[in-house]
Amino acid sequence: MSQFINAKDAIVTEAIDGLLRTSGGALSRLDGYPHIKVVMRSDWDRSKVALISGGGSGHEPSHAGLVGQGMLTAAVCGEIFASPSVDAVLAAILAVTGTAGCLLIVKNYTGDRLNFGLAAERARAFGLKVAMVVVDDDIALPELPQPRGVAGTLFVHKVAGALAERGRDLEAITEAANRVIAGVASIGMSLDTCTVPGSPKEERIAHGKAELGLGIHGEAGVSQVDFDGARHAMQVVADRLAPYLGKGPHAVLLNNLGGTTPLEMSILAEELMRSPLGRHIKRVIGPAPLMTSLDMRGFSVSILPLTSDDEAALSAPVAPVAWPGAVAPSAVEAIPLPDGLTPIKPTPSAHGERRAFIERCCQVMIAAEAELNQLDAKSGDGDTGSTLATAARALIGALDRMPLADMAQLYRAIGLELSQTMGGSSGVLLAIFFSAAGDAAADGADSAGALIRGLERIQEVGGAVPGDRTMIDALAPALAALPNGLPAAAAAARDGADRTASMTKAKAGRAAYVPEHSLRGVRDPGAEAVARLFEHLAS
Amino acid sequence: MSQFINAKDAIVTEAIDGLLRTSGGALSRLDGYPHIKVVMRSDWDRSKVALISGGGSGHEPSHAGLVGQGMLTAAVCGEIFASPSVDAVLAAILAVTGTAGCLLIVKNYTGDRLNFGLAAERARAFGLKVAMVVVDDDIALPELPQPRGVAGTLFVHKVAGALAERGRDLEAITEAANRVIAGVASIGMSLDTCTVPGSPKEERIAHGKAELGLGIHGEAGVSQVDFDGARHAMQVVADRLAPYLGKGPHAVLLNNLGGTTPLEMSILAEELMRSPLGRHIKRVIGPAPLMTSLDMRGFSVSILPLTSDDEAALSAPVAPVAWPGAVAPSAVEAIPLPDGLTPIKPTPSAHGERRAFIERCCQVMIAAEAELNQLDAKSGDGDTGSTLATAARALIGALDRMPLADMAQLYRAIGLELSQTMGGSSGVLLAIFFSAAGDAAADGADSAGALIRGLERIQEVGGAVPGDRTMIDALAPALAALPNGLPAAAAAARDGADRTASMTKAKAGRAAYVPEHSLRGVRDPGAEAVARLFEHLAS
Repeated sequence: MSQFINAKDAIVTEAIDGLLRTSGGALSRLDGYPHIKVVMRSDWDRSKVALISGGGSGHEPSHAGLVGQGMLTAAVCGEIFASPSVDAVLAAILAVTGTAGCLLIVKNYTGDRLNFGLAAERARAFGLKVAMVVVDDDIALPELPQPRGVAGTLFVHKVAGALAERGRDLEAITEAANRVIAGVASIGMSLDTCTVPGSPKEERIAHGKAELGLGIHGEAGVSQVDFDGARHAMQVVADRLAPYLGKGPHAVLLNNLGGTTPLEMSILAEELMRSPLGRHIKRVIGPAPLMTSLDMRGFSVSILPLTSDDEAALSAPVAPVAWPGAVAPSAVEAIPLPDGLTPIKPTPSAHGERRAFIERCCQVMIAAEAELNQLDAKSGDGDTGSTLATAARALIGALDRMPLADMAQLYRAIGLELSQTMGGSSGVLLAIFFSAAGDAAADGADSAGALIRGLERIQEVGGAVPGDRTMIDALAPALAALPNGLPAAAAAARDGADRTASMTKAKAGRAAYVPEHSLRGVRDPGAEAVARLFEHLAS
Repeated sequence: MSQFINAKDAIVTEAIDGLLRTSGGALSRLDGYPHIKVVMRSDWDRSKVALISGGGSGHEPSHAGLVGQGMLTAAVCGEIFASPSVDAVLAAILAVTGTAGCLLIVKNYTGDRLNFGLAAERARAFGLKVAMVVVDDDIALPELPQPRGVAGTLFVHKVAGALAERGRDLEAITEAANRVIAGVASIGMSLDTCTVPGSPKEERIAHGKAELGLGIHGEAGVSQVDFDGARHAMQVVADRLAPYLGKGPHAVLLNNLGGTTPLEMSILAEELMRSPLGRHIKRVIGPAPLMTSLDMRGFSVSILPLTSDDEAALSAPVAPVAWPGAVAPSAVEAIPLPDGLTPIKPTPSAHGERRAFIERCCQVMIAAEAELNQLDAKSGDGDTGSTLATAARALIGALDRMPLADMAQLYRAIGLELSQTMGGSSGVLLAIFFSAAGDAAADGADSAGALIRGLERIQEVGGAVPGDRTMIDALAPALAALPNGLPAAAAAARDGADRTASMTKAKAGRAAYVPEHSLRGVRDPGAEAVARLFEHLAS
């Protein structure tokens, strides 16, 4: 599988520049490429506590996509899955830290801890106030002495971000960050590992298996489980998180690890809310890609016992569009279906002349069945005649139920009948034709006017115009000529139908896919049907 | 590849319910499952023109994810890649349409046109004002009589949404929608087709190839091209769009077709802005998944000549979080690197006693090289002795450059020297130790106090505590005993180092990955080094 990249060593720098160009000017970067890749708020004035996070790239939108008012002040970006250098972190600290100081929010990986830690020391030597917190929310490997930092880190960004924005001091923000870190627990599950650019993909997870507790760099998880659908997957994850639930309400973050489709994520959201975790959830963040692992087809769930302060902090608005908000989960509100879906049955009424007219039209179609099928066999699938004849027979059988005395109602009833018995595109188009004619008649149009309204609508809906080799090539001239009498209309329809034989490029309907030479000299069966109908009526 | 779904025929209904549960109550649905899947604004009062879109599912966030203030009023969702029924569309119209009427925004597929079209007719029979527009923005197949509707549809949603929100009437909104439709042009490119749940995946696009102009249902494109990186891919797309550029400024929408990573999309954004299209762009939407095709690894670009009205409409705030905003593209602002990255060279100064003390310490480390390596070979990679000895030799060689007369500066200089010559985790940790000690000394701490500050910092950064089988097991008791004199400190260090031999579960450092039985009876080399140092100093 190729990827939309250029040179491998330019992936992160080019992606950062693309992010900046589409940030509306909200983001800037330090001029330290390629080694120093620091993204920062353009509007930063150092008057408040700065929040800096970062680490290896490949977890977008973390962390550069989370820089902005109410969240991070700066992000230090390493190469893919590689910690940024001490110099890069130091550059970020020096660039954004004022007298209020800065907080480094670090995920618990040795490289990040050490590089951020040493940079903090160097910055302190300049007299800057620098605090550092380490996020270790991954519960996948309970035996691991140093739990990893994963998607729960977003809770820290958001809570600290809200406090910093409100002007709280470094000590208070650090304390809040550490409180969040102490409470948050996360675990992930994936159906596939990720594709690291330039590296062969590890095909570790077999079809029918899911891996529980794998890391955001594709590190092997705690176990592989049989995959048995979204509900079971969420149940497994919820069971693992259950022992980490605190008292009272929780916030939950449902993270797309990268390659899971929005449809799947929404199904997982539904299963999350239906799981035993559901009743503990007062605020939900996502589903959304927040801490991804390139294209990994997986998800993670992070839980946080929720104080009212944290709830307010999580709900505060922020600039980065990657943050999806923290909303109160709601029950599914199902609104009763509106009236009108079952068509009102018209009151049958008698009108001998109209009944005879309709029957006569129908008989024309029935009589033409074989010949129209033959025409259609040369340009389509050979069933135009049968489709029309079947509909005609059904219409004759329905005449006793028809409101024959009321033209508007009659048109609509014919339309409804055709939509139910004729099927296919042509059935829908004829249904639209007669429904629209009925509306026009109800508005006071005469027969010709009503039928022209019907023609307009099928052109609008079907998209065909005269010359496209459809029934419109006969119907349009016939209706245009109708005010001059049926013979004129019939002549126009015949002329139009005959001209379709020279149209070798169908622009609508199935004939659009038939080669030109097959269409030459063959009339369109729909247009021919219209011509025959008018010719018979005029005779 | 498995997918996070349950039953195949419940994918769309479960995903909609998941979407609703995480919408914060903003979205509701009609009670028509499974056949009628209509998502609508919960706060809708029918006082303005309603906007209804929809079609097959699999294009999320289109269209249910675009329902909300400022965009769609309702979305009619079919099964994956299948048009919704006439009844479903009619239900949506009846549910949301007031006296102001409604506009149906339909993508140009026969099924959608017919089903939305007939539903519109049925609704008109109830006296409702219903207009319909058909989006046909795909320029991939210029010969195609009926261009498909793809991501450019979002422009119609947004412009019509802004006008409807402002209370404009149906005629004005329909006219604006048709103006947008006339102007918009889109084309996509993909490296892979999509995975339709329950269907085998079509492996049509070979490695090294990209398909240009494929459809959002995986329909084959106009051609396959050799894939030659992101820049070339965007160039090909920009070339195809160039003839469709209008006069003046344009809005551009960069759409993720589903499976492209955010890193790749940002690189494509960079290439888009650098392409010949770039200079025509006044507003950019995305990169973001807006009209996806399940997990397709591709992107599309849509362009729209921009009136000032449209620009205002595209920029108006909306409720759906899926809309990323329309921002003014900006140049990359690169801020000069801050001062301080190049450490200030301290002024060398002389202090015979301290120089002798440091040299003595270094000689202890040099003398212990072989034995420490042997210890480390049993629990790590056998280089602790060499690493320390090499650093010690370098430190001796650097003493002429050291500010020996200033303790605070001296600690910092040692830290810097070690970070540059020692390397590895232990180098960083010792650098942090001495840097922190320097800060403490600058704050007025005495030697013991300064070293204890260093100890605190390496515990904070490294994460190790006493008992974790690290040098801290010797260093912590030694520094605690230091106020009682060097002999007491040396005894405490030795006791601590010896106790590491009974610690069979390392919780930090490389020994964490060594089996217990290999660690039994073996002292930690770092702790041993500390003990030897104090023992020598006390002797």
